[in-house]
Amino acid sequence: MAHQCALVSAVMKERYFDDVKVGDRFKSEPLRVTEKKLIEFAHKFDPQMFHLSRKSAERTVFKGLIASGWHTAAMTMRQFVQTLNFAKGAIGLGVDKLRWPNAVRPGDVLTVETKILGVRLSRSRPRYAIIRLRNVTTNQRGEVVQTMLANAMVRRRLRRRPLHESDARTHRTPKHGVRN
Amino acid sequence: MAHQCALVSAVMKERYFDDVKVGDRFKSEPLRVTEKKLIEFAHKFDPQMFHLSRKSAERTVFKGLIASGWHTAAMTMRQFVQTLNFAKGAIGLGVDKLRWPNAVRPGDVLTVETKILGVRLSRSRPRYAIIRLRNVTTNQRGEVVQTMLANAMVRRRLRRRPLHESDARTHRTPKHGVRN
Repeated sequence: MAHQCALVSAVMKERYFDDVKVGDRFKSEPLRVTEKKLIEFAHKFDPQMFHLSRKSAERTVFKGLIASGWHTAAMTMRQFVQTLNFAKGAIGLGVDKLRWPNAVRPGDVLTVETKILGVRLSRSRPRYAIIRLRNVTTNQRGEVVQTMLANAMVRRRLRRRPLHESDARTHRTPKHGVRN
Repeated sequence: MAHQCALVSAVMKERYFDDVKVGDRFKSEPLRVTEKKLIEFAHKFDPQMFHLSRKSAERTVFKGLIASGWHTAAMTMRQFVQTLNFAKGAIGLGVDKLRWPNAVRPGDVLTVETKILGVRLSRSRPRYAIIRLRNVTTNQRGEVVQTMLANAMVRRRLRRRPLHESDARTHRTPKHGVRN
């Protein structure tokens, strides 16, 4: 019960860059993968026989339905976003070493653990900073189903500053995506 | 018209490892990103203010709705799967250098170009081989919205073999994901 309360409080709190440091770990709430949602995702985004139906999947090397790796990645993002809950969002700059060491199957319950690997201020945006993180997604048996490294741009906590200090350059619309 | 026919024929053909070689390039059919689908994906997988609604997105650094990078990745997978159309599917082993240099906005029309960077036989599965590829996703203005490198396991074309040759080891169910 205490464990559940800690999770809820983690979900509700809006976080800023200033609230995390290298080595911090965050654990998401569990998310159940239903057969219906697994198949729905596959029809939209990954129409391959091991994702589309029980029947077609039985004839594949996996001997049954498995989730698209991109579905696992998308579910992991949802869990990451809800757990870390950065104020103004976490803007993904890039992902590396995205791996799926075990298959995700219908009924699996996934949990994401996020570890902060690095922090630095943004070079071009004074109000932002960059965090480097590792997300590890595990199933209900503790088997790792996905690992990844990512860089994300998040907001720094605003502090009162003298009026003559201009914030003009922090309000630019990025022309070519987001530079860090 | 000739161009469209070539694309249709590319979509229909089932491909095997033996049909691709290093340097080959494949171009997908275009895929339009609607505002409805962009928002729907965000609600399910990436509930951040720059993805969820026009109104909330206008107050962000992007000054309007943009697609989740994971939505772009998922759409790219769909286009890749339909274009290459590997017999028995393409099993993703891992992804590196996933980047989103420009934002995807409602109404954008995306095209994926796949380039084969490397090919090798599977060490543990005689019927399979590994391709290394780069997917570049561009919008209707030719701006790159996503780049990635990936390894995928695909089937080799079956050849008639002497009866005494056993295929037993090719039928194992992978216990821990898929080893290459």
